[in-house]
Amino acid sequence: MDERVREHARTLVDWSARVEAGDDVVVSVEEGAHDLGVAVAEQLGERGANLVATYSSDELTRAYLRAHDGDFDGDPDYERALYERADSVLILKGTNNTAGTADVPDERRAAHASARQGVREARLDTDWVSTQHPTRAMAQQAGMAYEQYRDFVYDATLRDWEGLAEEQARLKGLLGEGSEVRLVADGTDLTMSIAGRTAVNSAASVAYDSHNLPSGEVFTAPEDTEGVVTFDVPMTVRGRRVRDVELTFEDGVVVDIAATQGEDVIRSVVETDAGSRRLGELGIGMNRGIDRVTDNILFDEKMGGTVHLALGRAYDACLPDGESGNDSAVHEDLITTMGEGSRLAVDGETVQEDGVFVWE
Amino acid sequence: MDERVREHARTLVDWSARVEAGDDVVVSVEEGAHDLGVAVAEQLGERGANLVATYSSDELTRAYLRAHDGDFDGDPDYERALYERADSVLILKGTNNTAGTADVPDERRAAHASARQGVREARLDTDWVSTQHPTRAMAQQAGMAYEQYRDFVYDATLRDWEGLAEEQARLKGLLGEGSEVRLVADGTDLTMSIAGRTAVNSAASVAYDSHNLPSGEVFTAPEDTEGVVTFDVPMTVRGRRVRDVELTFEDGVVVDIAATQGEDVIRSVVETDAGSRRLGELGIGMNRGIDRVTDNILFDEKMGGTVHLALGRAYDACLPDGESGNDSAVHEDLITTMGEGSRLAVDGETVQEDGVFVWE
Repeated sequence: MDERVREHARTLVDWSARVEAGDDVVVSVEEGAHDLGVAVAEQLGERGANLVATYSSDELTRAYLRAHDGDFDGDPDYERALYERADSVLILKGTNNTAGTADVPDERRAAHASARQGVREARLDTDWVSTQHPTRAMAQQAGMAYEQYRDFVYDATLRDWEGLAEEQARLKGLLGEGSEVRLVADGTDLTMSIAGRTAVNSAASVAYDSHNLPSGEVFTAPEDTEGVVTFDVPMTVRGRRVRDVELTFEDGVVVDIAATQGEDVIRSVVETDAGSRRLGELGIGMNRGIDRVTDNILFDEKMGGTVHLALGRAYDACLPDGESGNDSAVHEDLITTMGEGSRLAVDGETVQEDGVFVWE
Repeated sequence: MDERVREHARTLVDWSARVEAGDDVVVSVEEGAHDLGVAVAEQLGERGANLVATYSSDELTRAYLRAHDGDFDGDPDYERALYERADSVLILKGTNNTAGTADVPDERRAAHASARQGVREARLDTDWVSTQHPTRAMAQQAGMAYEQYRDFVYDATLRDWEGLAEEQARLKGLLGEGSEVRLVADGTDLTMSIAGRTAVNSAASVAYDSHNLPSGEVFTAPEDTEGVVTFDVPMTVRGRRVRDVELTFEDGVVVDIAATQGEDVIRSVVETDAGSRRLGELGIGMNRGIDRVTDNILFDEKMGGTVHLALGRAYDACLPDGESGNDSAVHEDLITTMGEGSRLAVDGETVQEDGVFVWE
């Protein structure tokens, strides 16, 4: 076994999920994540935790959903009981085909998801963590050779998380105390209010309310956005490529949309509901192990020297207790690079210049 | 997809497990059984049943068991809850390495199994069915090419089960009414009492209390065995090859053991406890789709024209209500071919001659 697979499993079990002896752990193994599954099983055995392995496969899902008439039973009791009693759920992603459910009708998928909200909530109520085992299909999506992609994933995942959590705590402090953020970059000059909002230190551990490995970002919930932003990082949104999306905000609301590719997709996202016209998230990428875009939002948005903004739903963790932020059916992240000449400032104080934090 | 995989799934879901709309079904997918998993998911979707897929892998099990200190938690509640609430459990076997747990200490394995008796009982309380997807590893164990082994598995599995169930009902009737069975074959002349015992029509369906696909046998619980039997079918018992085992019975008890290979293994089986010196099962193979030995007891013992006898534990289904039969920690099947010159008789009436039933 590649020693990095074992190290990945150790990071997941120890740093991310904080598994202890006697914990009841569900490990969801995707069809291409077998090797990581073996390494995680070893770590769980070593800690004296319990193990139930579930199988996740787009091919099974596709076959099931296409054959079903769409009238799904609500929250099957046997599945909910499993998650309600579990302490942790470790989701080992690793698909063999990123287009594996391409011919499943959207409404079938949506009906299945909405019939299972209780199961999903029970799962989200555990110390769950989602991570990515490198597969050839993911390498292909990233436009990389397999060996090259494996190096990329482990560079992003096997970090000094404790050190990064400390660095992120610094930015979290600045954002927590601040009232206004200003972003200046090529094609971007945007201001947002963050007064009264709490920034989240997303350090790839349930101890930090962070459920993705890798992570490496600090995010908050902005409002009253004014100005223009250009998202230069190409992305796949709803299965379509989008490039150079330019959004103009007035009084917190999108008033103009342009893009060199996929403008209609962005327009349909913005027009979903009232909340999708406003920002729900400002996220600042701080993972320096991620040095390139791979068309995988879990990695792209964490890249050091980038900022992402999400149209739609805000996370409760960023809001004062009991207060709810921007609400929407969507949460669509878009990313901009903070390159030469860029600046990120809180209440007029520069925090990052030319993509480099002032403390770096 | 090979149309036979789909037909296998259909047989499993319809004939064997009798799955209906709304049923809560757990599908256990072994690492090499993915394709059958996809086909079963399709069948479950078509019927409107619910699906939870679990992952079974000797490599995960090995890693977990070897890393664990051996002090296992008893019956983890989250896993038991899943099976207690399930209607059916479909076990799709398909290993990629039949020696995948070769270096797990026996006592570790035994401790794990005994800590999980409640989970196992909950699973056995469902309409469970175990079946075999053909893998290269299983072909190798059978000494067959992959394509050839696939033909073998589907010939054994895709039968006219309804027709076979009717034929087996005939033999079940004869055994149920009879008092004494006599087996005569090369190196074999054995009599057993079956008075008051119920024969089971094992027709690969939960409707017949039969939990293996393929099946195809009628079995009962004999006692007071007298005479000699030679098991000419080579087998693997406790990981060791055995050949031409010859057992001599007096007053129902083994009094002499001989074998051309593996005699000490058979001796250790016989000497396990008081019950392992007696027979717990007489089974008569009736599946004519199985035409050769493949070193897999699930297939070998069902072969038409063979008879198997098990040392050890008897099945309750063969006994009058409330009565318990031969008890033992072991149940070890051994097989003999009913060839030229062989005869199987019930109360002196010939039922099978030269390996052919009188009604065939």
